[in-house]
Amino acid sequence: MTTQTIRAAILGASGYTGAELVRLLSQHPNVEIVVLTADRRAGEKLETVFPQFGALDLPDLMSIEQVEWAGVDVDVVFCCLPHGTTQDVIRGLMHKTGHTLIDELVIETREDYIAEIRKPVKVIDLSADFRLENVDTYAEWYGHEHLAPSLQKVAVYGLTELAREKIKVADLVACPGCYPTSAILPLAPLLAARQIDPNDIVIDSKSGVSGAGRAAKEGSLFTEVSTGIHAYGVANHRHGPEIEQELSRAAGQDLVVAFTPHLMPMNRGILSTIYVKLADGVTAEDLHDTLSVRYEGEAFVNVLAFGQTPASRHVAGSNYALIGVVADRRPGRAIIVSTIDNLVKGASGQAVQNMNLMFGLAETTGLTQQPLFP
Amino acid sequence: MTTQTIRAAILGASGYTGAELVRLLSQHPNVEIVVLTADRRAGEKLETVFPQFGALDLPDLMSIEQVEWAGVDVDVVFCCLPHGTTQDVIRGLMHKTGHTLIDELVIETREDYIAEIRKPVKVIDLSADFRLENVDTYAEWYGHEHLAPSLQKVAVYGLTELAREKIKVADLVACPGCYPTSAILPLAPLLAARQIDPNDIVIDSKSGVSGAGRAAKEGSLFTEVSTGIHAYGVANHRHGPEIEQELSRAAGQDLVVAFTPHLMPMNRGILSTIYVKLADGVTAEDLHDTLSVRYEGEAFVNVLAFGQTPASRHVAGSNYALIGVVADRRPGRAIIVSTIDNLVKGASGQAVQNMNLMFGLAETTGLTQQPLFP
Amino acid sequence: MTTQTIRAAILGASGYTGAELVRLLSQHPNVEIVVLTADRRAGEKLETVFPQFGALDLPDLMSIEQVEWAGVDVDVVFCCLPHGTTQDVIRGLMHKTGHTLIDELVIETREDYIAEIRKPVKVIDLSADFRLENVDTYAEWYGHEHLAPSLQKVAVYGLTELAREKIKVADLVACPGCYPTSAILPLAPLLAARQIDPNDIVIDSKSGVSGAGRAAKEGSLFTEVSTGIHAYGVANHRHGPEIEQELSRAAGQDLVVAFTPHLMPMNRGILSTIYVKLADGVTAEDLHDTLSVRYEGEAFVNVLAFGQTPASRHVAGSNYALIGVVADRRPGRAIIVSTIDNLVKGASGQAVQNMNLMFGLAETTGLTQQPLFP
Amino acid sequence: MTTQTIRAAILGASGYTGAELVRLLSQHPNVEIVVLTADRRAGEKLETVFPQFGALDLPDLMSIEQVEWAGVDVDVVFCCLPHGTTQDVIRGLMHKTGHTLIDELVIETREDYIAEIRKPVKVIDLSADFRLENVDTYAEWYGHEHLAPSLQKVAVYGLTELAREKIKVADLVACPGCYPTSAILPLAPLLAARQIDPNDIVIDSKSGVSGAGRAAKEGSLFTEVSTGIHAYGVANHRHGPEIEQELSRAAGQDLVVAFTPHLMPMNRGILSTIYVKLADGVTAEDLHDTLSVRYEGEAFVNVLAFGQTPASRHVAGSNYALIGVVADRRPGRAIIVSTIDNLVKGASGQAVQNMNLMFGLAETTGLTQQPLFP
Repeated sequence: MTTQTIRAAILGASGYTGAELVRLLSQHPNVEIVVLTADRRAGEKLETVFPQFGALDLPDLMSIEQVEWAGVDVDVVFCCLPHGTTQDVIRGLMHKTGHTLIDELVIETREDYIAEIRKPVKVIDLSADFRLENVDTYAEWYGHEHLAPSLQKVAVYGLTELAREKIKVADLVACPGCYPTSAILPLAPLLAARQIDPNDIVIDSKSGVSGAGRAAKEGSLFTEVSTGIHAYGVANHRHGPEIEQELSRAAGQDLVVAFTPHLMPMNRGILSTIYVKLADGVTAEDLHDTLSVRYEGEAFVNVLAFGQTPASRHVAGSNYALIGVVADRRPGRAIIVSTIDNLVKGASGQAVQNMNLMFGLAETTGLTQQPLFP
Repeated sequence: MTTQTIRAAILGASGYTGAELVRLLSQHPNVEIVVLTADRRAGEKLETVFPQFGALDLPDLMSIEQVEWAGVDVDVVFCCLPHGTTQDVIRGLMHKTGHTLIDELVIETREDYIAEIRKPVKVIDLSADFRLENVDTYAEWYGHEHLAPSLQKVAVYGLTELAREKIKVADLVACPGCYPTSAILPLAPLLAARQIDPNDIVIDSKSGVSGAGRAAKEGSLFTEVSTGIHAYGVANHRHGPEIEQELSRAAGQDLVVAFTPHLMPMNRGILSTIYVKLADGVTAEDLHDTLSVRYEGEAFVNVLAFGQTPASRHVAGSNYALIGVVADRRPGRAIIVSTIDNLVKGASGQAVQNMNLMFGLAETTGLTQQPLFP
Repeated sequence: MTTQTIRAAILGASGYTGAELVRLLSQHPNVEIVVLTADRRAGEKLETVFPQFGALDLPDLMSIEQVEWAGVDVDVVFCCLPHGTTQDVIRGLMHKTGHTLIDELVIETREDYIAEIRKPVKVIDLSADFRLENVDTYAEWYGHEHLAPSLQKVAVYGLTELAREKIKVADLVACPGCYPTSAILPLAPLLAARQIDPNDIVIDSKSGVSGAGRAAKEGSLFTEVSTGIHAYGVANHRHGPEIEQELSRAAGQDLVVAFTPHLMPMNRGILSTIYVKLADGVTAEDLHDTLSVRYEGEAFVNVLAFGQTPASRHVAGSNYALIGVVADRRPGRAIIVSTIDNLVKGASGQAVQNMNLMFGLAETTGLTQQPLFP
Repeated sequence: MTTQTIRAAILGASGYTGAELVRLLSQHPNVEIVVLTADRRAGEKLETVFPQFGALDLPDLMSIEQVEWAGVDVDVVFCCLPHGTTQDVIRGLMHKTGHTLIDELVIETREDYIAEIRKPVKVIDLSADFRLENVDTYAEWYGHEHLAPSLQKVAVYGLTELAREKIKVADLVACPGCYPTSAILPLAPLLAARQIDPNDIVIDSKSGVSGAGRAAKEGSLFTEVSTGIHAYGVANHRHGPEIEQELSRAAGQDLVVAFTPHLMPMNRGILSTIYVKLADGVTAEDLHDTLSVRYEGEAFVNVLAFGQTPASRHVAGSNYALIGVVADRRPGRAIIVSTIDNLVKGASGQAVQNMNLMFGLAETTGLTQQPLFP
């Protein structure tokens, strides 16, 4: 076992993905948390924000401005800030940690970038700010111009199982959204194999409330959410274009999907029920075979026996993704159900998985905790 | 206002739909509950089974065998027994209450039946036993021969808004399942109008746990259900053929749908997210127009403004069905979301609505309670 | 049955107690809702704030300032505003509706007040602003001077079963808090009978989240509240002095209680587990007898058989209070459990019950809805 | 770090405490699970019973009878069987693993026992079967004679922090009940210090549903438990005498407590709100000091700052116990709130903690997982 120690900073430690990183990294044998930021709680201990961490020995919270990037000895920065604010922050800190030339360079490709920069701090972003390759698409869906278009070119979309080699050498990884992770894992291999119709995909997703973050909003109140379910962002949720970007890449052609997120009364978890049309001559069993082969040997992606479908509660707290395939009663169609914990494989767990890759560790290091059930 | 008093029997009062009938009928100005059965609790007060009814004055529980149908003065029987047991019970009680000739008659049609029989007791069945017109389909999906095929011919499928005239003169009404109610209400008018493709319908439904009844099953335990969601009966749930029967009727052609029920941690409510393909030249707005016109003036079916979708919690405890229509981002497709309380419009409320029709009362009588939120 | 129509205004209709009043009053045969206020939503329909009311015909929301009290024909005002803001509002509207002399009069007693004033609008306040008789106690616990001390003298603390005669002739009723209602109902008769030690009372209460209102607070988020329980305001909750005021009155001596509220993951309901020390020679059965006699014939207070204790879910949505008495294993002590729906008997239901009394209606009018379970 | 490998058997692996042991031991660097029993599921894989374990490599389930105790190489047996069945099973397996003389010996004390027996398998029992020292008390509360009274004499009540030295040398540890753990941890040191009145203790406890186990009971259904709370076993719960046994031991005198458990809608967690009377001259701060000193340096017991109280959700999934102390408003009294995860510190976590002690490992080995929140 390596005795490497990675010094980690977590920006935005007062939110749920930040807290989840603390939970996971506290069990990681190779990580020391050296910086925790939370602008509005600067100066406090993390346990005043998250009492569950009273037993851990952690640095006090500071504001992002208080971090002296040039001086601090940090190997990796996890960025858990709200979308829209992250591009600027990452751009700034990458400058300060050795990327001074980034805007002056003519950076056309990731290779250009890597060649120019000395050992930089690695950045793993959990926001949406670097997920969309096309900055115009970003501007359209997020309502403002992209603030770091040069950096966007070097960002790697970090769905670990599908981008492993790129992630290993990346300096900036954009961790996928939770919904996209649950949808892309089962669909990308099937599209790549041309076994399903790229223009007839329905993704019906159900999410726990932690996906809405810790902001105090009426719509996230216990009284407003418990005892019911509703769809939201129907046909216009921002994870739609993110899913389409990656599925289009896999299919080798542009495609549009139906994607409907629902909010339901559970803390964690996403379950996506996916309806696909089979290509001529393809059966539901074929889809199952493709996925089984594709994910054989993967530590965190588990394809269930044909005809079985997973429950979200069986991945809670873990980095697992479970996938099931069933034949539809309608001829020529199949139903796929996938599930992840939105805060782990859908956010902080995948971030740690990516970190492990980026630092040459076994991918499962610090991520072996089993689901908490019941 | 009529001062008519309807004397009602509830068979199976120790289950949730039975209790829900007691709740609703206790507020009905024209109903007196005169018989309550619960075989295993015979002799007890209902409040020992359901403590919430401690303030009501109700008859003691008896077993079905203890009811002397020939002598008891009952106008309507609500049958809340498990499927498979109901056909025999209803056949027996209809005999005893004036239907003695039923098996000897050559009954080919409902009209034959009504002509022959003297003022019979009305039966409103909440089980699945009389929902499927084709007794072979029943046998296939429920695993045993239909025990009252003659009666099946006279049973009316009681989705109130779609079968009002038949229900008014029916002696035996088979109340629709909860999932079917949520799916048929929005889809039947669109199929009848030939505005959607009958062969490309996905019904993704999410249900509360009361739909599983009060039986003590591991899968319904709090610890097994809370904090998660899972699909079940994927591509083989018994409500599938029921939905298809009614949608085929509306479409004028046989069709098969994708129907995926999910179990989620709420007591009451069903939300169905429905994906449809538009006929040539039809828009999502057209669907909305069709539904708005179709349900204008209906007391319990409310079509939201175009683009809005409902939340299950906003119908809890009420007989309302809410329907929303949204354009899919995929051209030529639309998304429909409908919701009901599975125990009210999906069971006992619709049963009372049907009773009102059968006895000439205003359809809303006793059903004006507003949703309980939060 | 009277055909009287009471014209009602609800101030603060965008909160949960306001919505609950709408739900209840929509079923009340003698009430017409003529004014609904919600300052920040003025001009909107109530269903944009509370979609569950889409089927009701209600006046649009206005701001309180927009109400022309002098001109509007209102018989009763329900005031559902936050504490601290209510004294001023009620003082103003009482002036404008015929109480012009209120500050100039030398009002020493309720009788003075009633004698002087012409037929005024009746005010039923659901906030805490008029619950504490001693304005100094109010100032101490609520952090600001009482803004309408003259009015305080005429306010009646409206726990219906204990103050029926005063409520009948009151112009201003201060509806009790939810915790106090659950605690005072069982304890006041026992203190009055001198059957328990006034100085040894522990009230351990568990409340649903709706008691915290609809304000967007981190502490009320689904993610912060579900899956756990915690005590709050231990030994310093504002309902403590309110409980003590009424229990001291019943006991005929000042007393202090231990009162610990807990927040738990349910929408509605309060369950109070109360530990008392018996007076010499008194048994737990004696307590049960006292309460049974005291509440015999009460429509909404139900004392269970000795040794049985109630569940909060069996009163949800109803105006019932259930009380159980059990002998402690410790000699000379007893345990009492009481439960109410905090939004009904603990707020809006009791308000309607008081309105019925104030207007000479049967106390149960509009309040016969049975609990919603499951 | 030791490289010792402990071979563990889990009897009753299809229940929640069994599953929780699998979850915890799968992360324990020194444990290999070699036997898993579940009589009714013998021959199946554990993941068919608990799908969350699909990624682990575990032995198949067998029946207890199928285990050849004489031959199998097992170091520790965790016994997760229902109470009443456990005494016989443990007696049998201890015989078969080297305790053949146990009934023939005149065993009067633990020391006798340890002296006689060769290196036996260690047994850690999570049931109630060996918790009550007095076999008559056991018979009175559990309704049948104790089946292994000789073994009872050597069993150690395993509340780790209070019985560390005995546990280190024990062969049979009876892990405390969940409620008792939450109550004894704060109260025992205060009684030992004579700072509180032993005859005036109220323990009001709130528990999640997993405490009721995985048996299919109506009372544990989601629909029966969610949205409410109720007390049960008031004044006659079996954990009462267990609490009293240990508190009497600490106090040096017999005592009786008020103990009221409540069932509430959460999966895990117990929160106990405890009301105590202070000895003359003692203050609430003194209690806080006593507990702070007593638990200083304990890895799993954390005393919060004076005046702060814990939330159950902040220990979920972890082995922590949190304790808070507040002054009551009633002079001479204090309120203590303690919380644990009933399945971890209240069962399987404490069992592993005890195992660590019994095998000479650091007490925290395998137990460092942090709470899962939200």
